[in-house]
Amino acid sequence: MSQSSEKARQYARKHAERFQRELFELLRFPSVGGDPAYTAEVRRTAEWLAAHLHAIPGFESARVMETAGHPVVYAEWLGAGSDKPTVLVYGHYDVVPAAMEDGWDTPPFEPVLKDGKIYARGATDNKGQLFIHIKALEACLETNGSIPVNIKILLEGEEEISSPNLTPFIKENLDLLKADVCVISDTSMRTVEEPAITHSLRGMTYIEIEIEGPKEDLHSGLWGGAAHNPALALVEILGKLYNPDNTIAIPGFYDDVVPLTDAERAMIAKTALSEQDYKATTGVPATWGDAQYTIRERISARPTLDINGMWSGWTGPGPKTIIPQKAGAKLSSRLVGNQNPNKIYESMKRYIESIAPETVKVSVNLITTGMPALIPFDLPEMQAASRAYEKAWGHAPVFTRGGGSIPVVADIANLLNIPVVMMGFGLDSDGLHSPNEHYSVEMFMQGIETAIVYLDELAQLPRD
Amino acid sequence: MSQSSEKARQYARKHAERFQRELFELLRFPSVGGDPAYTAEVRRTAEWLAAHLHAIPGFESARVMETAGHPVVYAEWLGAGSDKPTVLVYGHYDVVPAAMEDGWDTPPFEPVLKDGKIYARGATDNKGQLFIHIKALEACLETNGSIPVNIKILLEGEEEISSPNLTPFIKENLDLLKADVCVISDTSMRTVEEPAITHSLRGMTYIEIEIEGPKEDLHSGLWGGAAHNPALALVEILGKLYNPDNTIAIPGFYDDVVPLTDAERAMIAKTALSEQDYKATTGVPATWGDAQYTIRERISARPTLDINGMWSGWTGPGPKTIIPQKAGAKLSSRLVGNQNPNKIYESMKRYIESIAPETVKVSVNLITTGMPALIPFDLPEMQAASRAYEKAWGHAPVFTRGGGSIPVVADIANLLNIPVVMMGFGLDSDGLHSPNEHYSVEMFMQGIETAIVYLDELAQLPRD
Repeated sequence: MSQSSEKARQYARKHAERFQRELFELLRFPSVGGDPAYTAEVRRTAEWLAAHLHAIPGFESARVMETAGHPVVYAEWLGAGSDKPTVLVYGHYDVVPAAMEDGWDTPPFEPVLKDGKIYARGATDNKGQLFIHIKALEACLETNGSIPVNIKILLEGEEEISSPNLTPFIKENLDLLKADVCVISDTSMRTVEEPAITHSLRGMTYIEIEIEGPKEDLHSGLWGGAAHNPALALVEILGKLYNPDNTIAIPGFYDDVVPLTDAERAMIAKTALSEQDYKATTGVPATWGDAQYTIRERISARPTLDINGMWSGWTGPGPKTIIPQKAGAKLSSRLVGNQNPNKIYESMKRYIESIAPETVKVSVNLITTGMPALIPFDLPEMQAASRAYEKAWGHAPVFTRGGGSIPVVADIANLLNIPVVMMGFGLDSDGLHSPNEHYSVEMFMQGIETAIVYLDELAQLPRD
Repeated sequence: MSQSSEKARQYARKHAERFQRELFELLRFPSVGGDPAYTAEVRRTAEWLAAHLHAIPGFESARVMETAGHPVVYAEWLGAGSDKPTVLVYGHYDVVPAAMEDGWDTPPFEPVLKDGKIYARGATDNKGQLFIHIKALEACLETNGSIPVNIKILLEGEEEISSPNLTPFIKENLDLLKADVCVISDTSMRTVEEPAITHSLRGMTYIEIEIEGPKEDLHSGLWGGAAHNPALALVEILGKLYNPDNTIAIPGFYDDVVPLTDAERAMIAKTALSEQDYKATTGVPATWGDAQYTIRERISARPTLDINGMWSGWTGPGPKTIIPQKAGAKLSSRLVGNQNPNKIYESMKRYIESIAPETVKVSVNLITTGMPALIPFDLPEMQAASRAYEKAWGHAPVFTRGGGSIPVVADIANLLNIPVVMMGFGLDSDGLHSPNEHYSVEMFMQGIETAIVYLDELAQLPRD
């Protein structure tokens, strides 16, 4: 460990109380990005962050930048020189809604410290975690007058509403945001002893199928027996999307899936999820799926196809004896690297149209797509993060795959063509998006020290 | 043709104008049985009918009788003696709602005569048709002082809301209503030249299936791949209810179906429905069903299984990436003689439970049942009706099967253990339940004469 990073870590420990007070200030802003009533508060939060960064010697460039929606905060320090890598730090300062009546013990925007935990909306997601990086950088600059690498900070205000304006912002600012690696702390670990780096996220193809039969609902007594019921036609089509072994029957669906290596399966096995635990958490009577893969593999490293919604005819109480005019379903695939969401959509559409019977009209429409992200965990930037955890956290991390989608990760990886290292400093038990969301002071402080060490590790990587 | 019935027919022709005026009076009552706002009007209609019958010499017994809902009107004339059959005449004096804004050209409860047609709600369904029998009986009594058979008249006020109180009424009055045959005029023919007697109606078993998977909607990213999607489980179950040839796969489903005889198929062929006509009327791109049967056979003489409604998960606009907690469907079978609706329900339940996977909870519930009615058209009472049409209408009727259900028909047939002869004097084009419902004066007058002749024909049947 370098002397300079040791000094920065000491600085962080010494200023721990102030850091917490400052985080409390940030947490007091009700920056609910999805609710127009809070638009002014969201902007105030961005302005506070820009001012806060601006006050750190070296981040005089910190500023609020406009998008078509909520603004982003940008700051950079490029003093390490061109022989050192540039690290893009991403975070989001918006939060999901919170109200006392949802079950909060204390007001969600009046942070309190209780048993070593900070209770407030946004404590772990993502204000506490983004503040880790700001304080790590402050510690470097205040103690050494420099950071071991070049830094660009990008904080957005729309992550909780799927970042609708971030892709355009990135596309318009490719030069400004050019970097060698992106670090995001917006994920979590199971326990303090088990740090985790998420190196893969699933993408998505979301479609809607609609079936039309007769020109209006038919009286099933007068017409029943000679009309193909649109709900039945839908059932027949949906049934043909799956194989008897629960795999997906759409031709070509698995073609681009990068096979799991033995090393990856061994890594996934470190966070094995038992049938017992899956059942207890979800409440399902039994697990299901492709028996060739473990439960953890199925829910994170394998693509899926789920019916998210389905409708037809009469759904109110009691009987109504109709042949419905229409039936429909929403379906979405969680995709893995290197599946292409648009190519998958084309495969779906082609297959469904090929099995559509003549007795009804079938239409397939695309609702949304998202790219999967798969960043090999043997990349130098990933391994550098692993060493940083070992040195500063005291435990080597596992590399995990996230089953969900964080569109911004794939956007950053693909648009800027750089690896994204997801160093999550949250705990699974932090209650993000729930009442009484909280963040542990221990995680916050250990996060700062690990972030400092990571900068050092990155600086030592050989440059191409 | 007997001299007495000839006199009665002359009387009817002579009093045609008065008959129409009286029908207009009856049509002016807004006897909307399903709308509580019209409860008093419904009762006034019953009182008018009872008073009208009471004024006919011989029907002094006419009276309003209470049920748990709208009242029934009852009257009897038993002067033919025990060596003559007793005929139960059923009709209903309630109507479905009607309002100018639905598209009526004239107020629905202010009957007008235009081009030989009477326009009013209830004109054909069923006030005009029930009045045929009242006027036929009046003609007999006024001209001969007697009727060739014993008569019991039962007019109800809840047919349009599925006769909820008629079965209890019949059960409590089995002696009062005891008869040898029931006549109902509440169906229709395609053209004046094609009279039709409906000798079969389909019954019904209506069920609901509900599937439960996880204890709440699951995030498809975090959990997708190892939970059996309840909507998919429903799709799989529903798919197994049908065979590839579009027949129903529930074991035992067809066991009690009375096979169609060659004579019945020949009779059904007289009202053949072309693929072209079925498509034009319903708007389906192509017909469907069991290719072993003609379209008319499929929709009237064969049992069906239709999905009437289906639901699961998110059905609003846009994407929602959940594995739904539940999925459900409403399903109903139209049944034919001699299928038993409760036995069919048991078969459905047993089969669905047998194919239910362990990965979800499946429940099957009965919503409602209705008995099918199949009255052989070679019965003497049916053939007597056929002769009555030939003599008074000028055309022999076809015997048709109705695809729908009129629960009261099966109730009367089963509770009183007598054949029901459905001599429909309406036209398919009368617009029943629609704006500008109407009834042709020609049909009304020919109906009265045919009803008179039918009484004569019934009187001549040999008694057991």
